[in-house]
Amino acid sequence: MKLIMAVVQDIDSPKLVAELTRNNIGVTKLSSTGGFLQRGNATLLMGVEEERLDEVIKIIEKICRSRKHVITPFPASPGETMAPYPIEVTVGGATVFVLNVERFEKI
Amino acid sequence: MKLIMAVVQDIDSPKLVAELTRNNIGVTKLSSTGGFLQRGNATLLMGVEEERLDEVIKIIEKICRSRKHVITPFPASPGETMAPYPIEVTVGGATVFVLNVERFEKI
Amino acid sequence: MKLIMAVVQDIDSPKLVAELTRNNIGVTKLSSTGGFLQRGNATLLMGVEEERLDEVIKIIEKICRSRKHVITPFPASPGETMAPYPIEVTVGGATVFVLNVERFEKI
Ligand code: NI
Ligand code: NI
Ligand code: NI
Repeated sequence: MKLIMAVVQDIDSPKLVAELTRNNIGVTKLSSTGGFLQRGNATLLMGVEEERLDEVIKIIEKICRSRKHVITPFPASPGETMAPYPIEVTVGGATVFVLNVERFEKI
Repeated sequence: MKLIMAVVQDIDSPKLVAELTRNNIGVTKLSSTGGFLQRGNATLLMGVEEERLDEVIKIIEKICRSRKHVITPFPASPGETMAPYPIEVTVGGATVFVLNVERFEKI
Repeated sequence: MKLIMAVVQDIDSPKLVAELTRNNIGVTKLSSTGGFLQRGNATLLMGVEEERLDEVIKIIEKICRSRKHVITPFPASPGETMAPYPIEVTVGGATVFVLNVERFEKI
């Protein structure tokens, strides 16, 4: 058995937990912060049999893949004369660690 | 040295932390959610020497063993004419991962 | 690659996260409680290449080393006739686990 520790963005966490649960993968979610500004993210723990490892990582990739969003910012102030222009931001991404489990007990 | 990561129910967590502390096992508690409804649980981290591993897992089993409780639900509404009947619910249970620690530093 | 799990005191956590970030070590911070009174601490996760392991542990030692602080407690009550005398308390310290990472994915 392997233990997957996946650090994912808050925005992707509920959808990923739902998709893993739908595939009968038990998930424990820890609240965490990370990155340059220590923004909110989630650290998910999953105990996974070797033969399902690739499948689970594919699910994480599908839900959390890094992608571009185009957003139009609000004007900085009400009197702002320049119209705001749309900018592209990147969301998603995940950091996945797979650890070996020496012993596993379901009590 | 081994690292035990134990996911336990909120209801069992304070008693388990107390019992481990009484046995001189240091415990770090992380708040977490898990299971089908992502209810509150706790993830406990313990660094344990190999020779105490069985002892610690026995303590977790003793405190967290899955057991039945009989509860009598409140009537669904005040006008309910059917008397509520007692139902059995299962509480407890734990998921325990034992990982190998390659290096351990106490600073 | 190795996964470092470091349990550090709340008082040291922001400075340690800043110092690790400054050295381009990504850190995920989990809120946790630990020790005899289960006071607030932080559990930090870092994925680190083998060749930077000693460097990262040295940073943790530098920031979190156990040290004495002299504090002067307030009198126990306003009518207290005994002048309070300064006492020494120990702060800092860290527990560091290094785990082997079998597979690492950056999504
Ligand atoms: Ni296995
Ligand atoms: Ni050992
Ligand atoms: Ni490596």
